[in-house]
Amino acid sequence: MQKDIRVKKETEAVFHNQATMCVGSGRMDLALQEEYQQHLALVQKEIGFSYIRGHGLFCDQMGIYREVEQDGRKVPFYNFTYVDRIFDSYLKKGIKPFVELGFMPSALASGQQTVFYWKGNVTLPEDVGKWQQLVRKTLEHWISRYGAQEVESWWFEVWNEPNIVFLAGDLEEYCAFYRDTAAAVKQADPALRVGGPSICGIDVDRWLNGFFSYCQEQRVPLDFVTRHCYCGGETHKNGEYVHHHMNEPENMTQELKQTREIMKRYALTKELPLHITEFNTSYTSRSLVHDTVYNAAYIADLLSRAGEDADSYSYWTFSDVFEEEDVPKAQFHGGFGLVAMGGIRKPTFYTYRFYARAGKKLLYRDENVLITADENGQRYHVIAWNMTAQGLRQDQEPKKYRIEFPCFGGGTDAMQFKTCVDEQHGNAGGSWCDMGCPRTPDQIQLDMLQRLSVPEMVSTRLKAAGGYYETEICLQQNMVAEFELTPCRTTDQPYDGFEEAYGFGLQIR
Amino acid sequence: MQKDIRVKKETEAVFHNQATMCVGSGRMDLALQEEYQQHLALVQKEIGFSYIRGHGLFCDQMGIYREVEQDGRKVPFYNFTYVDRIFDSYLKKGIKPFVELGFMPSALASGQQTVFYWKGNVTLPEDVGKWQQLVRKTLEHWISRYGAQEVESWWFEVWNEPNIVFLAGDLEEYCAFYRDTAAAVKQADPALRVGGPSICGIDVDRWLNGFFSYCQEQRVPLDFVTRHCYCGGETHKNGEYVHHHMNEPENMTQELKQTREIMKRYALTKELPLHITEFNTSYTSRSLVHDTVYNAAYIADLLSRAGEDADSYSYWTFSDVFEEEDVPKAQFHGGFGLVAMGGIRKPTFYTYRFYARAGKKLLYRDENVLITADENGQRYHVIAWNMTAQGLRQDQEPKKYRIEFPCFGGGTDAMQFKTCVDEQHGNAGGSWCDMGCPRTPDQIQLDMLQRLSVPEMVSTRLKAAGGYYETEICLQQNMVAEFELTPCRTTDQPYDGFEEAYGFGLQIR
Amino acid sequence: MQKDIRVKKETEAVFHNQATMCVGSGRMDLALQEEYQQHLALVQKEIGFSYIRGHGLFCDQMGIYREVEQDGRKVPFYNFTYVDRIFDSYLKKGIKPFVELGFMPSALASGQQTVFYWKGNVTLPEDVGKWQQLVRKTLEHWISRYGAQEVESWWFEVWNEPNIVFLAGDLEEYCAFYRDTAAAVKQADPALRVGGPSICGIDVDRWLNGFFSYCQEQRVPLDFVTRHCYCGGETHKNGEYVHHHMNEPENMTQELKQTREIMKRYALTKELPLHITEFNTSYTSRSLVHDTVYNAAYIADLLSRAGEDADSYSYWTFSDVFEEEDVPKAQFHGGFGLVAMGGIRKPTFYTYRFYARAGKKLLYRDENVLITADENGQRYHVIAWNMTAQGLRQDQEPKKYRIEFPCFGGGTDAMQFKTCVDEQHGNAGGSWCDMGCPRTPDQIQLDMLQRLSVPEMVSTRLKAAGGYYETEICLQQNMVAEFELTPCRTTDQPYDGFEEAYGFGLQIR
Amino acid sequence: MQKDIRVKKETEAVFHNQATMCVGSGRMDLALQEEYQQHLALVQKEIGFSYIRGHGLFCDQMGIYREVEQDGRKVPFYNFTYVDRIFDSYLKKGIKPFVELGFMPSALASGQQTVFYWKGNVTLPEDVGKWQQLVRKTLEHWISRYGAQEVESWWFEVWNEPNIVFLAGDLEEYCAFYRDTAAAVKQADPALRVGGPSICGIDVDRWLNGFFSYCQEQRVPLDFVTRHCYCGGETHKNGEYVHHHMNEPENMTQELKQTREIMKRYALTKELPLHITEFNTSYTSRSLVHDTVYNAAYIADLLSRAGEDADSYSYWTFSDVFEEEDVPKAQFHGGFGLVAMGGIRKPTFYTYRFYARAGKKLLYRDENVLITADENGQRYHVIAWNMTAQGLRQDQEPKKYRIEFPCFGGGTDAMQFKTCVDEQHGNAGGSWCDMGCPRTPDQIQLDMLQRLSVPEMVSTRLKAAGGYYETEICLQQNMVAEFELTPCRTTDQPYDGFEEAYGFGLQIR
Repeated sequence: MQKDIRVKKETEAVFHNQATMCVGSGRMDLALQEEYQQHLALVQKEIGFSYIRGHGLFCDQMGIYREVEQDGRKVPFYNFTYVDRIFDSYLKKGIKPFVELGFMPSALASGQQTVFYWKGNVTLPEDVGKWQQLVRKTLEHWISRYGAQEVESWWFEVWNEPNIVFLAGDLEEYCAFYRDTAAAVKQADPALRVGGPSICGIDVDRWLNGFFSYCQEQRVPLDFVTRHCYCGGETHKNGEYVHHHMNEPENMTQELKQTREIMKRYALTKELPLHITEFNTSYTSRSLVHDTVYNAAYIADLLSRAGEDADSYSYWTFSDVFEEEDVPKAQFHGGFGLVAMGGIRKPTFYTYRFYARAGKKLLYRDENVLITADENGQRYHVIAWNMTAQGLRQDQEPKKYRIEFPCFGGGTDAMQFKTCVDEQHGNAGGSWCDMGCPRTPDQIQLDMLQRLSVPEMVSTRLKAAGGYYETEICLQQNMVAEFELTPCRTTDQPYDGFEEAYGFGLQIR
Repeated sequence: MQKDIRVKKETEAVFHNQATMCVGSGRMDLALQEEYQQHLALVQKEIGFSYIRGHGLFCDQMGIYREVEQDGRKVPFYNFTYVDRIFDSYLKKGIKPFVELGFMPSALASGQQTVFYWKGNVTLPEDVGKWQQLVRKTLEHWISRYGAQEVESWWFEVWNEPNIVFLAGDLEEYCAFYRDTAAAVKQADPALRVGGPSICGIDVDRWLNGFFSYCQEQRVPLDFVTRHCYCGGETHKNGEYVHHHMNEPENMTQELKQTREIMKRYALTKELPLHITEFNTSYTSRSLVHDTVYNAAYIADLLSRAGEDADSYSYWTFSDVFEEEDVPKAQFHGGFGLVAMGGIRKPTFYTYRFYARAGKKLLYRDENVLITADENGQRYHVIAWNMTAQGLRQDQEPKKYRIEFPCFGGGTDAMQFKTCVDEQHGNAGGSWCDMGCPRTPDQIQLDMLQRLSVPEMVSTRLKAAGGYYETEICLQQNMVAEFELTPCRTTDQPYDGFEEAYGFGLQIR
Repeated sequence: MQKDIRVKKETEAVFHNQATMCVGSGRMDLALQEEYQQHLALVQKEIGFSYIRGHGLFCDQMGIYREVEQDGRKVPFYNFTYVDRIFDSYLKKGIKPFVELGFMPSALASGQQTVFYWKGNVTLPEDVGKWQQLVRKTLEHWISRYGAQEVESWWFEVWNEPNIVFLAGDLEEYCAFYRDTAAAVKQADPALRVGGPSICGIDVDRWLNGFFSYCQEQRVPLDFVTRHCYCGGETHKNGEYVHHHMNEPENMTQELKQTREIMKRYALTKELPLHITEFNTSYTSRSLVHDTVYNAAYIADLLSRAGEDADSYSYWTFSDVFEEEDVPKAQFHGGFGLVAMGGIRKPTFYTYRFYARAGKKLLYRDENVLITADENGQRYHVIAWNMTAQGLRQDQEPKKYRIEFPCFGGGTDAMQFKTCVDEQHGNAGGSWCDMGCPRTPDQIQLDMLQRLSVPEMVSTRLKAAGGYYETEICLQQNMVAEFELTPCRTTDQPYDGFEEAYGFGLQIR
Repeated sequence: MQKDIRVKKETEAVFHNQATMCVGSGRMDLALQEEYQQHLALVQKEIGFSYIRGHGLFCDQMGIYREVEQDGRKVPFYNFTYVDRIFDSYLKKGIKPFVELGFMPSALASGQQTVFYWKGNVTLPEDVGKWQQLVRKTLEHWISRYGAQEVESWWFEVWNEPNIVFLAGDLEEYCAFYRDTAAAVKQADPALRVGGPSICGIDVDRWLNGFFSYCQEQRVPLDFVTRHCYCGGETHKNGEYVHHHMNEPENMTQELKQTREIMKRYALTKELPLHITEFNTSYTSRSLVHDTVYNAAYIADLLSRAGEDADSYSYWTFSDVFEEEDVPKAQFHGGFGLVAMGGIRKPTFYTYRFYARAGKKLLYRDENVLITADENGQRYHVIAWNMTAQGLRQDQEPKKYRIEFPCFGGGTDAMQFKTCVDEQHGNAGGSWCDMGCPRTPDQIQLDMLQRLSVPEMVSTRLKAAGGYYETEICLQQNMVAEFELTPCRTTDQPYDGFEEAYGFGLQIR
């Protein structure tokens, strides 16, 4: 069965594409690693995110907060050696910090409760004044180093997922802590943007309503709203791995809409930006779904619509350089990353590369296809995906489309450039299984995986006929593909005597 | 129809693979160009030739031979500025000079006759003593700069194709000139290897017999024999382009055998190395065949057998940085190169990359398939091609093979890594036609061509069954493909709980 | 004897610094060379010129103009392969073309007269209409490739030094040729800037007056005026070298003023920009003066004042990759370049690096010292030189200065960073003589020369005392030095317990 | 006062130069950092060490040893992800591991005692069998990854400084632990080299005698002996800094000789290699001495003699990427490194660069000067230093030498290339003080420090006179200088007409 689409010539519709607004990162001090920086360079070169967000800014490993003894008493000492190195590296790569203010330095903590293998302390400060001073001093340092104009273009989010284990405190305590932290931010510079509550999808109504009404009543500054969305449903654990029955992508769309609904109830929040500061399919870094073409198709589906409701949605995370559940123990291990260890692109990397190149004009969208165009009308861009229902993998027919595009000016032909990721192409995790799953591949194996992570790339010439170019798309299960159409310049003859079919049965094309 | 092959377990047969022994280059001073050096770096990184040979060492552009006036008379002045820069760059990239001694500096020439757009002077020296001194001084300079051991590993060929327009002289004159030049070489260092006659395929019998008997009778040093082979047959000219009906590849094989036959007639030559210092399909740099997948398949066929008869066969040339017929006027223009302008790999580039990775043990060979293995038995390597008879391009069925390989030790499975160039994949010239043939593409177009020049790469896991791995190969017309089989390490489990099919219908492979 | 300077606190004076506006280049197609591009990258990274100008755009080597036979007659064929590669490389390195329209393609030439080793044809076109078409087509190609906005920021100069051997024609013929060429430029885009007459310093009055009055009377477009200045006086030839008694730098200053005087006589020219599209000490590329510290000091003197009269002055040339007098025959050979072969910086390179960093505010200037400051008052910049009168080299006392600078705000100390080139430091040509003058150095020798080309660099802390920092400068003969003063941040103590002199007689400073 | 030296023509003496045999590193997982790898690349490019040694291989951060629950019980799980990445990076940079086997993974530890900010566990294993298995599995993994031949070229040292806080155990316990660990090493491959006891300079006699007699009596394998030497004497603490009165360098020489004496007492050890696996001036990473030119001179003195007694002496450490006393809090902070943060070379870096280039023949040595030559007699190499007695810094006269070198063959002149580090040149720490001690410099400041870290480099031509070249050396306090003499090639005239002094009072030299 085939679906026919005739793309309209003109549109007022805009594709709200926030795919590359922000991306997640492993804990801050991992940014000191060479491997992390290599992955970030790759991601910035081929995708290009605007902001990056991760945990652990104030954790002990970063070394920012210390106390030294002077004249017999402990005084705070601020050490920006590591954070300067890291933020310098971000800005040099064209990405800005989306700052998460947390977790608690041991020297300030009121308790011992921690999260993760790397033991981030999640207790409230013993002395909130010292915490406020830490926040203010840190922001002032950045303003001094990077200039106020630069720092005012960043975002400052207070803590992470306080509604679950990430805060040793309740809603009321978070609200007070938010108030004090926001005050410190504004003290450093009133133009800095502060927001929260950074909750995950549990007990959402109570938290959002509670937090918004608190801020509104107490006149606490709130410049933007943040929350998280994960799509993993029913779980099954095997050894260290977690497998999920995935929720429908539509679930996440609904979550966004519901959040917007709640925001609309309050004068304070109804016009504020909504940033989804984390999202992904599974919420664990040991779920193999992240390494699959299914994931690439799932995310392609989400990205086609999420910009209608949210101002950003930050894929958690750009890289498998990540330690929440211990040091990665195998080349592929279900990590969150777009990039696997050794700089290997995963299928979902390409989903992002495709969305980074989408046009601003929205020409067509359904559950498998997104068609956009550049504002100058000189490029069509198609993203197509076929997220195959779980359990049906072996049985499904490919989906087929026949699409007609109005011709570019001058009756010129078009070149169609197709880039395709599927179970055979651009599927490094699959190839690693073919290889026998070597836990730490050597350089020869990594080189193979690098090559096998490359998608299929094919060009075709589309003839201008009857005012339209016609193309066909055949979507195998879990395929994600990009089609780019640009005008041929047919008048530019190579030179005297050139002909594609040049005799004796030979031809260059 | 399908052919079945069961590869035998053991063999004494050796694959005589001289594919990467030598490669041709545009005239020497083009090596000063950045683009040339970038292409050479690419070729050396991905293929890795041992020697490089080109024309024009002593031409005026290289600046080596000059005469200056001192005390009222002209004296020779030798300037090695450019050749030092070039040879330094070669050695740094791991490639050695296969030195062609020619053409004639204007200041030494006896006439005005030239070849090519760049006007190489092809006349004999006015004063052969000055020529000999030039040769000797140049060689002594290299020995001083690079050490005798290094220079003794090079080859020195006297002139180029003296049997046609490249020498303003006849067989007798070439013989005398060869004698004098060889004497100069040996004067610099008796261990240097000198050879000739570097003829192309015209009037071959007379030239070889004449030259060999001359050297034998006159006791002229001859350390190796050289000649050229081109496969272009009937020609058709259209504008600046030349099209050919190609001879069968078998023709070239016959030429090599006949040359060997003649060599065997003389005590002097019967054991000497035979170097084909130039070969290709068409002999012009304006024949589009060089840019096609057909060419890749044609050369794949030649390379599968040429090592049986020749000690090297130097593809003319590695790069489209080349000016014999004027500055290239379009991105694709039928140049000889493995690499097109902008660093774009042509299909034949991959043929060479495949042959560079062939094994030393010869397991199977027919007119479409070459199967080799590493000496340690831990890798199978298949090159398969389907050079499609001209004029039949549209009509032909793909060729099919079913191949069984004896299992690697321990009953392990194998990973098959297939790399495939065909009309859709790795065919940048074809994609450039799709693009509308822009003569000098801009950076965006070059980036597209770069990506479209990448072959299809796919992995598969072959199960060990009954002591064999079984695979199928389907050869579309003019396809060239490489299949590499290496052992899986199935005992190396990723880690606790890993399973490819991990539930809920999802799987990583 | 010592001179005392107390720098004033404030000034309205501006330092008219056009040192980095434009730089000269060897003939256009040398830009294809790797060595050329490496030198340009170095120069752009450390100095940063805005425009580049060289000869030979339309010469045969560039391949732009060809004629092909079609239907029995010759038709023009334009080939932009090389010029696209070159201009792409310029723009990528942040430098724009200052286009010299010349010389004449053989196929258009009316005669055989050439200049230089590389035989640039200097005759007028046989058919001026074909020349105009060549100019127009070329400019239209650039507009299509780079956009009109970009190309409108370039400059187009008609021909080179038509008043001497570079034009086979007289003033009258140049005027007509200029008119026709300017018309072609404006036809391509009326916003393109065209100028001339690009004369050298011979018969200047007659040429400028003749050209200006012609343009004014004939209403020929003229957007800027160009000429050249060289400072070589009495000459002495030895073998291939040319030595000069240099004119005083003041001579060139006078030439600029006289040119401005003539320009003021014509309504057309009195407000036009004046570009010195070539200048240097000697006007030959075989004059060792270019390789000396004397040259560095001489140019430092010129650059301190030339911006008062001219809108640019283009040092001829940035690199010794240059062939006007044959291929360079030795590492140092008196070439024009700021950079010698192998990427070795000459002393004058540093003169330019210093001027590239001068401040916008002019605080003090005499015949040996230029003091500028940044507009924000947070940096002082001193360039000091001591061009030693010829013949007196061994006898002269160093010149001494004592300079007081008003303190930066807050009573902070200052760091003085001195960079010094003299006969011992940063004098690679001198070190090459110490080395025994190897004509083509090997890599080890080049590495030594690289290190020996580095200036002396020393820092000092200047104490704030009485509202001033005080420093002393001692200028050895032919020294060129840069002193940069920036505020210390004395309040930023390293950390707890740090002290420069830390006991036991040890100290870090 | 001046000392005269006439270097003899021939010698049998060999300079035992082990300066670059091994170098120290911060704890193993810091090698994941980009900054660490950049420093190592710099050090390897300009100095080139053979081995690298650091703590923390088995610490928790490396993730190697874990226990997972399977079938209800804990089983060991080995994860080589990080160590593979690190060792791959070492080998790629041409440096091999000198493996320190330690400290204890938490999961194996018998107690909680730790060292350093980063909490290395120093207790003995709860179950020595599991420790042995960890050691054996790790070594087997390396053999599988890198090949037995490679791993057999490494060294394996058991633990670090067990005689002080680094082991929660006594001599007897160390001996037993050494025995068990050595057994595990030999089980992996009997050809692997194992050694100890890695003690520092406390209670040395008892430990060495005890350990050697134990191994000899119990027939425990011992392939080499290791110990540490630090030169810091009387200490003074100020805030976080530690200052020392330094012992005389001679003290360390005596320690080496005494160690050799003890080794000679035992048949087992008398012929064994002795590796000083750590040495430096101060033993803390907060002692500013490490950043000074005094340190460079002190180490230069040590390196001139240490090879007489030891087979290696590993400077602790190559880089300030180091965390034993917390994250570095300022650009210069008294860290051990040859390289400071931001890739800034410290003065002692140059001491090592000089020793890396010393010749094999020992021609002369005293307390300030070391003169060596290449085996082919074509290069003289001088290292000179003037370690100035503490407290006398301001008062001392420079030391002066007049040295005569026998001429190179052929009566040629020599080029002398001097590289000089002193308080003004190559002293980045001093310049940082001039700058106002910014704790985390920005990129502009780092660029300045980079340039200010460059030594003074000057060439001179030494005339051959009376069979000798004569040079003078003037050693300012705490200066370290290198003088390299190589033959001029005076016969290689640049070209026709070249003359250094070329008239009009000008000259290139």
